[in-house]
Amino acid sequence: MDFSIRAANLEDCKDIARMIMELAEYEKVSEHVKVTQKDLEQDGFSKNPFFHGIVAEVPEAQRTKDGHVKIGYALYFLSYSSWKGRCVYMEDLYVMPEFRGKGIGKALMSKVAQLGMAAGCTQLNFTVLDWNKASLDFYAAQGCSDVTASLGYHVMRCEGAERGEAWPNTIEDRQ
Amino acid sequence: MDFSIRAANLEDCKDIARMIMELAEYEKVSEHVKVTQKDLEQDGFSKNPFFHGIVAEVPEAQRTKDGHVKIGYALYFLSYSSWKGRCVYMEDLYVMPEFRGKGIGKALMSKVAQLGMAAGCTQLNFTVLDWNKASLDFYAAQGCSDVTASLGYHVMRCEGAERGEAWPNTIEDRQ
Repeated sequence: MDFSIRAANLEDCKDIARMIMELAEYEKVSEHVKVTQKDLEQDGFSKNPFFHGIVAEVPEAQRTKDGHVKIGYALYFLSYSSWKGRCVYMEDLYVMPEFRGKGIGKALMSKVAQLGMAAGCTQLNFTVLDWNKASLDFYAAQGCSDVTASLGYHVMRCEGAERGEAWPNTIEDRQ
Repeated sequence: MDFSIRAANLEDCKDIARMIMELAEYEKVSEHVKVTQKDLEQDGFSKNPFFHGIVAEVPEAQRTKDGHVKIGYALYFLSYSSWKGRCVYMEDLYVMPEFRGKGIGKALMSKVAQLGMAAGCTQLNFTVLDWNKASLDFYAAQGCSDVTASLGYHVMRCEGAERGEAWPNTIEDRQ
């Protein structure tokens, strides 16, 4: 299949927002998605972006029945390990179902890894839900290891439902 | 106990490197630490830093037997959730053993949360090793949730032992 991968730009935020929602529906968590197209524009394309994106496109002749040519994406940001140094974190990797099995996911992931390496990163990190066998198999085939299974890493989270709400509890203990 | 917390500066990298190694020894992984004081100086204090740090200090009268007054630290960076938006990731949180139980860890974590909120973040994320009961209990007391246990998130990793080594496997599949 003919496809291309390029850096995302401001105009891609509409399609990225669409595909984020498709991915959330697949992961059965669409009611948890708060990010909007406008958030993506502001947070990904300002002077100090919170993330970067890449988009996979197919030629017009292969567009979806709804007319989409942007059929996959990945979001990533630079991060740090106090043991290993510079890392890249892949927040999302998604290809629309009808375009899977054609190397597009592998190519997107490879591009994130390349961009990370170009920035001096030696590690690519991300998370997968344990029931998502198709993804676990895909990532194992790419040579990734599950460090929750092998080393016992647990992902922890503190959040405030609304801006200004104290989180974690300790925020009351102001110095 | 009298202590203060402030943003880390270049001169703190020596003590941060020391405490990273102490934390790694506690987590039984000191042979995995590759980051040096110089890496921290370069990666944390350049124009586009990979991380930020805060340091906890005690007065001279309470210095350790080795003469240290910098007795705790946290490393963090801004990150992103395609569902929730801006997040802050706490890479390390450490207080030297003799200074624990005095509210310093809570204060460091609270400061990271405050700094994240100031940047518009609504979520604080980090990882904990599943055998580290003392830390798990501490974080539960701060109101954090274990989303590996509750939602099944697994941390995945791909790495290259040396710069230039292809990782993940897919990097060979160049578009």
